[in-house]
Parts: sequence; structure tokens; C-alpha cells
Amino acid sequence: MRVIGIDPGLRNLGWGVIEAEGNRLRHVANGTLHSEGPDLAMRLLSLHGQLTEVLRTHAPEAAAVEQTFVNKDAVATLKLGQARAVALLVPAQFGLTVGEYAPNAVKKTVVGVGHADKRQIDHMVRMQLPGVVITGPDAADALAIAMCHAWHVRAPALKVRA
Amino acid sequence: MRVIGIDPGLRNLGWGVIEAEGNRLRHVANGTLHSEGPDLAMRLLSLHGQLTEVLRTHAPEAAAVEQTFVNKDAVATLKLGQARAVALLVPAQFGLTVGEYAPNAVKKTVVGVGHADKRQIDHMVRMQLPGVVITGPDAADALAIAMCHAWHVRAPALKVRA
Repeated sequence: MRVIGIDPGLRNLGWGVIEAEGNRLRHVANGTLHSEGPDLAMRLLSLHGQLTEVLRTHAPEAAAVEQTFVNKDAVATLKLGQARAVALLVPAQFGLTVGEYAPNAVKKTVVGVGHADKRQIDHMVRMQLPGVVITGPDAADALAIAMCHAWHVRAPALKVRA
Repeated sequence: MRVIGIDPGLRNLGWGVIEAEGNRLRHVANGTLHSEGPDLAMRLLSLHGQLTEVLRTHAPEAAAVEQTFVNKDAVATLKLGQARAVALLVPAQFGLTVGEYAPNAVKKTVVGVGHADKRQIDHMVRMQLPGVVITGPDAADALAIAMCHAWHVRAPALKVRA
């Protein structure tokens, strides 16, 4: 199963695609999209176009997006919400169901603890995807989200076998 | 010039289309979209599809969206941001530039004061669009946003003539 993970952001939107076969994970591609444009509508259009191109190129069968960490800065929360809408909409337009995971759930799955820092995530992503070249911190997070989703989709099957 | 105004919301997204010729305004259509679906991605996809259909049917040449009033409820702000992204994205996908107006700017243009209540807006929209049948409060707000945009687009021309 090919999974795309997306770490939404208006300025930097991280994405990572992995291939999951049984217990084996393989890296496919990762990157960071930057929104451009004179106003918010054009920036969202730019993100939408770039993310559509990523899905067209890498043809994932499942998608997962990080659940937004709602913070106290309302303006930042609003911006994140707008970027997140694009991250949810594009996979849905390709007919994919979109999993949503809280940041702590992603960390717990990938690192084993809910309060891991960026370096630990980066390390575990590299460990589990040998040979991966990570293009940036948002792409590393996106790969972790994809790994989290692959694990959660696989888990019910493992439980049935147990 | 045909203008669509959009009052974004995830549960209720109001829209209103008017035709502006010189100082004359004419009502074209208005309505309220409701998002449906088992999860957020599907709800955004549903809103996106419905709003795309509205723009395809009524072919506006300009669009305006209400600037979100950032409030203290972060979860509500995030939801509004996600609905707002769809409201900005769809007109941009049709090649329209999208004006953004703060609620007070809309009220000031349509009613004359920045702190008008819903009834006053409803009243002024009916006064300026004779014969309009308003389908709901979100649609009334959307028509007010469209009127505000028509006025702001026309204003520079009036200034040049003066």
C-alpha cells in the first residue's frame, strides 16, 4: 500500500510518500511545498495545484494528515486551518480516505513516546526508511505521519491474525 | 459586473450573486451550502463541489469573502479557517481575484455603520436589491459582502470622474 503523509502549513507544507508491504516500509519520495501569491486565495490555489501534482505523480492509495495543534495564537490557528483544508481536500478529490492523527499519536507510533523531539523523529524515520534523503523538517514529519498511518491500517489485520 | 459574495462556514456557507451596472444593483441568486460527510476531508470535498457548481451556474466575474472574525474559541477558529480556504480556493480556480473584507467594513458599506445588527443588514440588502428572496441569514450576509465588493470596485472609477 502506498501512503502519503502531509504536514500542513501555509508557508511550508511537508509531504512524504512511503510504500508499506506487510512489516516492510520503503521510502518513495518526500518534499516541501511553499505557497506563493499576492493574496491568500492565490496562495491556497498555488498549494492546491502543487499538492495535486504530487498526488498525480506518486499515486498514493491512502493519505494521512496531522491533526492541527490548536494553540493560543488565533491568527496562526486560522492560517493553519486554511492550509490544512487544502491538505485534506486534495486527497479526497483523488478518492482517498484521509486519516487524521494528533502529533502525539504520530510520535508515539514512530518513536514510542508521545513527547519526542524533532531529532528523535528524524532519527527514527531514517532508521525505518533506509537510504532516505529527507529534504527538510516538515518532510520528515510528513514521512512520520505516513508511517503512523501505515501502522494503524496494518494493525487491525495483525490483531485478527493474533 | 457580476459579483459573488461568500460568507464562509463549515456547517452553513452562504453565497449571493449580484449584477452591478454603474450605480444599479440587481439580485441574481443566493443560497446556503451545507457540508456533508463522515469526516472533515469529505465535508470539505462536498463544500468544494457545491461551491464549484454555484460558480459554474452563475459565472461571476469577481468574488469577495468575509474576513474571518478571529475569536477566542480556537477549535471554532480552525473550522472556520478550513471552510474559508474552500471559499477562497474555488473562485481562484475560476481565475477570479478574491476581495476580502472585514465584517465591520461590510456593515459600514451596506448599512453605514460598522456595528449594525443582522436585521439592519437584512433590511438594507432588501432595500438595495428590490424583489430579492433571501434564503437565510448566511445568504443575506453573502449578498452584503457582494454589494460591498461591487461598491469598492466601482469607487476608484467614481473618484477618477470626480
